[in-house]
Amino acid sequence: MARVYNFSAGPAVLPEEVLREAQEDLMDYKGCGMSVMEMSHRSRMFDDIIKSAEKDFRELVGVPDNYRVLFLQGGGCMQFAQVPMNLMNKHHKADYIITGNWAKRAWNEAKIYGDAVAVASSEDKNFTYIPDCSDLPIDDDADYVYICENNTIYGTEYFQLPNTKGKLLVADVSSCFLSRPIDVTRYGMFWGGVQKNVGPAGLVIAVIRDDLITDDVYPGTPTMLKYKTQADKNSLYNTPNCWSIYICGLVFKWLKKIGGLEEMNKRNEKKAKVLYDYLDQSKMFKGTVRKQDRSLMNVPFVTGDKDLDAKFVAESAAAGFENLKGHRTVGGMRASIYNAMPYEGVAKLVDFMEDFEKKNLK
Amino acid sequence: MARVYNFSAGPAVLPEEVLREAQEDLMDYKGCGMSVMEMSHRSRMFDDIIKSAEKDFRELVGVPDNYRVLFLQGGGCMQFAQVPMNLMNKHHKADYIITGNWAKRAWNEAKIYGDAVAVASSEDKNFTYIPDCSDLPIDDDADYVYICENNTIYGTEYFQLPNTKGKLLVADVSSCFLSRPIDVTRYGMFWGGVQKNVGPAGLVIAVIRDDLITDDVYPGTPTMLKYKTQADKNSLYNTPNCWSIYICGLVFKWLKKIGGLEEMNKRNEKKAKVLYDYLDQSKMFKGTVRKQDRSLMNVPFVTGDKDLDAKFVAESAAAGFENLKGHRTVGGMRASIYNAMPYEGVAKLVDFMEDFEKKNLK
Repeated sequence: MARVYNFSAGPAVLPEEVLREAQEDLMDYKGCGMSVMEMSHRSRMFDDIIKSAEKDFRELVGVPDNYRVLFLQGGGCMQFAQVPMNLMNKHHKADYIITGNWAKRAWNEAKIYGDAVAVASSEDKNFTYIPDCSDLPIDDDADYVYICENNTIYGTEYFQLPNTKGKLLVADVSSCFLSRPIDVTRYGMFWGGVQKNVGPAGLVIAVIRDDLITDDVYPGTPTMLKYKTQADKNSLYNTPNCWSIYICGLVFKWLKKIGGLEEMNKRNEKKAKVLYDYLDQSKMFKGTVRKQDRSLMNVPFVTGDKDLDAKFVAESAAAGFENLKGHRTVGGMRASIYNAMPYEGVAKLVDFMEDFEKKNLK
Repeated sequence: MARVYNFSAGPAVLPEEVLREAQEDLMDYKGCGMSVMEMSHRSRMFDDIIKSAEKDFRELVGVPDNYRVLFLQGGGCMQFAQVPMNLMNKHHKADYIITGNWAKRAWNEAKIYGDAVAVASSEDKNFTYIPDCSDLPIDDDADYVYICENNTIYGTEYFQLPNTKGKLLVADVSSCFLSRPIDVTRYGMFWGGVQKNVGPAGLVIAVIRDDLITDDVYPGTPTMLKYKTQADKNSLYNTPNCWSIYICGLVFKWLKKIGGLEEMNKRNEKKAKVLYDYLDQSKMFKGTVRKQDRSLMNVPFVTGDKDLDAKFVAESAAAGFENLKGHRTVGGMRASIYNAMPYEGVAKLVDFMEDFEKKNLK
């Protein structure tokens, strides 16, 4: 087996030992004679899988008892509606900080359900920075303030949470999920699609404060989309994405084993540093993001020459570095270096870039 | 590896050769160096997986060109809302035929979005039969008539579709999905959660006539829940449940290989016959369903003695026949004998039942 270095922005690389365990147990999970894919979600075995997954997640992240952990379907785009349907319920107003495509789509969807106001944006510079969020015009009536904490496409990340002036903070953490320790109490809710940094696509993990889970939702909200429905049934209102929950559970165990989110953060900083340090001194490749806002997860870079970019993408793929093509709105390249990308993968990429630069610099 | 015979109602048994292929390719799909779980849903490789899956599904089922095939998240409970949000859009009325728990839940959810009328029900006899649907009081203004075509809990199945008097038929086919040939043109739409008869949980496949896919939806419908959103983007509006789509694709190939839905139906009839024939002559075990409505997929049976039922469930599990405990609303036992359950599994179960009967009949 020749595994490539997969720099995909999501779905993305998973830890090799997790995949190996899933492979070993695929047809006969722990001697029970069936695959996890074949198990009733009401079975004792699956009950153990989902409860262990929640327990390990809570331990890793440090989720306080007054927060619920929900396993939901529909991905981020479903949350773009589900958040306002459930939480824009007092003044029917919310403030959005627009730092990229996903924040913007969340904002546009929220307008269906109430008065969604963009209180800050970095669109003026193609989302290459995080706006100053220390003193935003937060509405007195805002039911929450919404951010996308790491912007997959543009490669920016909040290293300081916004001053919400006492309002609830709601964050989409999809592309920095479990990449570093966080203080859960700073959030009213955060949620992440698991397909970037945690597990197979088709699952969102949402962490939401108890008191925000109510029946007071937007009229016409489907029963499935009320957080209360899923909270009351411990995420088993109907059959969940069992396989994804299982794989995420294995990833949580892997994270605990390597030393938890502090150790993960150290590794992520080390990986990002070797790449950013190289970019900072390169005469060919340039990062696209303001230095203090550079994401530890998604690293876009360009040569400034489209043909050269294309050549780099082709040659890097041939050398076993996959999915380095940048998003069309940024161009160039993007290396997504999520939790499961080993340091070695980034170091080898940098070697390859140095070599490419030497050969192609005019 | 000792695989059990898994009679779970869902998630349920999958074909062994499908699981074996998935296991072999888990860490390195077709030599591409990554798992299907790690692939971008926008990659060439995944594009091939989802397109092949749709193509094979269309071939198997005989889906005409004027019907779309959609891969959706959220399971059946999401469809209970999504169907009326999208289709109860002319007169805001629909007729529901109540043949069990899932039809009833669909009906209750539809009441959020309009005037949902129960035009027939078999609740008077604990859903042990399918009502006569040849001349129902279908409303002139009904936007559609809704059925649950196979009732997993109660073990009934429609062998004749209702006379909808020209109105659209919408069917939940989750627990008889791909179990026999159907005439797609009889339906405006049908959909199935794949977790019973097709693949891993967290995916619904919906087949819907072109002209029913419109922007004319219930106000406040999330963008994700408009069928049009997913149809316009070929089910890739956001990241779908890629792994489940992949496994379903392997199951479609397996079905084609064994001879398609006609052959599958023959096998299913043969499996059901051996079990029903035994039940019909047993002095201990009795089926619970009116003969002409007995499902080929889910076979509930009872001894009439709760202690004896419990003894049977315990002893059968010890002998490698798993998940035979019946649903609490019916009691006793239930053998779900979906597509992937081999004839041998049912024949051995019948042997075991005969033996149990001999030993325990007073």
